[in-house]
Amino acid sequence: MAGIREPLLSVRGFRFLGRNIGIVDHTPDFAVACSERPCAAAGMFTRNNFPGAPVIVGREHVASGRLQAVVVNSKNANAATGPRGVDDARRTCRALGEALGIHERLVLPSSTGVIGVALPVERIEQACREAPGLLASGADPLLRFARAIMTTDSRPKAVSLKVGHATLTAVAKGAGMIEPNLATMLAYFFTDAELQPAALKALLGGAVERSFNRISVDTDTSTSDTAVVLANGLAGKVDARSFGAALTEAAIYLAREIARDGEGATKLIELSVTEAPSQPAALAFAKSVINSPLVKTAVYGADPNWGRFVMAIGKVFGYPVPLAGLSLTFGAGADALTITADSQSPETLRRISEYLRYPEIHIRIGLGAGSASETVWGCDLTEGYVKENAFYTS
Amino acid sequence: MAGIREPLLSVRGFRFLGRNIGIVDHTPDFAVACSERPCAAAGMFTRNNFPGAPVIVGREHVASGRLQAVVVNSKNANAATGPRGVDDARRTCRALGEALGIHERLVLPSSTGVIGVALPVERIEQACREAPGLLASGADPLLRFARAIMTTDSRPKAVSLKVGHATLTAVAKGAGMIEPNLATMLAYFFTDAELQPAALKALLGGAVERSFNRISVDTDTSTSDTAVVLANGLAGKVDARSFGAALTEAAIYLAREIARDGEGATKLIELSVTEAPSQPAALAFAKSVINSPLVKTAVYGADPNWGRFVMAIGKVFGYPVPLAGLSLTFGAGADALTITADSQSPETLRRISEYLRYPEIHIRIGLGAGSASETVWGCDLTEGYVKENAFYTS
Repeated sequence: MAGIREPLLSVRGFRFLGRNIGIVDHTPDFAVACSERPCAAAGMFTRNNFPGAPVIVGREHVASGRLQAVVVNSKNANAATGPRGVDDARRTCRALGEALGIHERLVLPSSTGVIGVALPVERIEQACREAPGLLASGADPLLRFARAIMTTDSRPKAVSLKVGHATLTAVAKGAGMIEPNLATMLAYFFTDAELQPAALKALLGGAVERSFNRISVDTDTSTSDTAVVLANGLAGKVDARSFGAALTEAAIYLAREIARDGEGATKLIELSVTEAPSQPAALAFAKSVINSPLVKTAVYGADPNWGRFVMAIGKVFGYPVPLAGLSLTFGAGADALTITADSQSPETLRRISEYLRYPEIHIRIGLGAGSASETVWGCDLTEGYVKENAFYTS
Repeated sequence: MAGIREPLLSVRGFRFLGRNIGIVDHTPDFAVACSERPCAAAGMFTRNNFPGAPVIVGREHVASGRLQAVVVNSKNANAATGPRGVDDARRTCRALGEALGIHERLVLPSSTGVIGVALPVERIEQACREAPGLLASGADPLLRFARAIMTTDSRPKAVSLKVGHATLTAVAKGAGMIEPNLATMLAYFFTDAELQPAALKALLGGAVERSFNRISVDTDTSTSDTAVVLANGLAGKVDARSFGAALTEAAIYLAREIARDGEGATKLIELSVTEAPSQPAALAFAKSVINSPLVKTAVYGADPNWGRFVMAIGKVFGYPVPLAGLSLTFGAGADALTITADSQSPETLRRISEYLRYPEIHIRIGLGAGSASETVWGCDLTEGYVKENAFYTS
C-alpha cells in the first residue's frame, strides 16, 4: 500500500488501537498507543502562536522526559477552544490514565481536524475507558492506529526500521495546513530501544530538522503540529548514532509521504538547492521555489517553465545571485536534463516536459554561488487542492 | 466596463496607441504613450533580483527625472534574457526615439508576458517606426493602450481624476505573479500637471506604498514590476498634496482592480487588520491572512472558517497576540457580522456564509492588542487559478 513501507513491524511492549467513535461520521477517528512500561520520551510542537489545547498539555507532559501512552482523535483539532479546550485535553489524559492504571501525566494527547469547535469530550472519555479491552500488539492494530489519525490524508503513512536488536516504527499524518516549523501535523515514533530522554530530544531535533522542517504543502502552519518519540527500552541499549540515523531516515520517509499525499497533489517534488552562498540562503531559495504557486502549477501542467524558477529564486530579496550561474537539472543520474539561461534546446525542454509527467519529480537548482545545499519536499498545486479546501466543512 | 472607472479622460499633450503586431497571436500586444514635450518623471520597479531587461534600462532612463514616451509589449517579458535582452530593450527605445524625434533616454520600455524567451526585436522596431502615424489623443486610443498591455488580465484597468485644472489618468495590468514589493506588474500615470521630478518621486512612493505594495494574488513577485508617472506640465502647477492624494486614489483603485481580476479570482477581498501592537505587526498579520491558501479557498467556498483565520494569525511567529482579544468582522456598517472565540452562533455563521457569496468581501480582524491598523487587498483561490497556470504556455 502506498504510504506504508513494508514490512511494517510491531514494537515489543507497545499495543495499539484505532477505531471509530462517531466524532463526525463513520470513519476511524480515535487511536491509542500504549507501552507496557514507562518510556523515555521527547516531543516537538508547532510554532503557531495559537497552539491547540493538546499541544499545550502535551508540552507539559513531555517536559518530564517520560511518557507511556498517546491518545489521538481526528476530525476535531481542539484548537482555538480556550480554557475549556485545555480542560478537555486534561480530561482525556485523566480518563485514559485511569483506564490503563498509569499517571495522567504519562499520557500525551493529540487532536487533529477542524479548528475552533469544542471537543465531544464525554464520547472521548468513554472511548478511553473502553481502550484497555481493545489494545493489541502487531501490525494490524498499528495500521488501524495509522488510519484513525488521518484527516484529509488519502492513505496511512508508516515505516519500520531495525537498529541493532531494537525496532523503530513511526506513523504520521499530513495532507493540508502543512508548512511545519518545528514538526509536522502529527508524527509518532515508537521504539523498544533504550535511550535517555535528553539523547532522544537531541536526536528527534536533528531528525525533524532534516525532514518535517523541509516540507511544505501550502505554506500554512498548523496549530496542532506534534512529533513525539517513545522509547520503552525493552530491547536494551542501542548505538545512539545508529538510532539517530534510523530516526532521521524514518522521519524523511514520512515527510516525503506527507508531501506526496498533500491535499490535491498528483506529484511529489524533491527539490535540492546546491552551490548556494550559505545554508540559510540555500534554505530560503528552496522554500521560495517549493512554495511558489506558479512553480507548483507549472509542475502540475508538466511545463518546463524556466522563467517561473528564475522569478522564485529572484524574489528571495536578501540573497542576490547571478543569473549566469543558474542551472536547473531535472531527474537524476545519466538521464538528468539540465537547462541554463544560454542552453535550452527545444528537444531538452520537450524531454523535461515528459519527465514532469512522472509522479515523483527531482529538481536540482545550481546557483553557482557557493557550496551550501539543502533539500526540501513539496507537491504540485491542482484544482483538487482548491476543491478540497473550498468545500471542506468548517 | 468593469476595470475602467468612467469617465476615462484623455490628458492634454499625450497621445496613445495599442495594437497587435503578432508577437504570439492576434490579440493586442504593443502599446505606446507619448507626450508632445518632455515630462518630469519618476518610477519604481520590482525588487526581484532578476529584473527584466526593460526594468534595467528603465531604471537608467528614469534616473534623470525626465521621460517623454513609454513603449510596452505584452506576451513576452524580456526577462532572464541576459545581455541580449538588455540590448533588445535599448534597441526598442532607440527605434521609438528615432521615429518620434526624441532622445532614446526619454523612452521608458516595458515588457510583460513569458519569462526567458528572446524578444522578437525586429518586429518591435518596425512597430516603433510605424508609431508616429498611429498615435492619437482621446479616450479610445487610451483604452487601446490599456488593452494592449494585458496578459492574463480579463479586462483593462484605468482611472481618471481631476486635480485643479490638471488631469491624471492611470492605466495598469496585473493578473498573476502578483505580490509586488515596490510596484505592481505595470502601472502608468499620465498627467498634464506641472511637478518637479523629486516631488513626483516622493508622491509616487507614497501612493505605491498604500496601494500596489498592499495587494497579493499569489505571493509571487514578478520580474517586470514597473510603476511610472509622466507629468508634462501643460496644465500648469497644481497643489502637490492634492496631486499626491489623487495619485494615491488612482493607485488604490488600480491595485483593487488588479486584486479583483487576479488569475481565476471570483472575489475581491479587502482585509483590514486593526488593534495591532505596531504597524509592521499589522502588515505582517494582514499579509499572512491575505496570502493563506486555506483562507483564500475558504472565502471561495463561502465558508466562515474561524479556525483558518486563527491559524493564519498564529503563524506570524514574531508577534504573539492573545486569542481572547481576537474578533473577525465581515461586511461593513450596520449589517456587519462579528465573531469571536466565545461568540459564534449558528445564525451568525449562516449569515456570514451568505455574505461571503458576494463578489467583494470586506473583512476586519480586530486583535485587541494595540492601535495600529493596515488594509490590504487580495482575492480568492479557485480552480481557475490552477488551470490558468498549469496549462498556460511556457
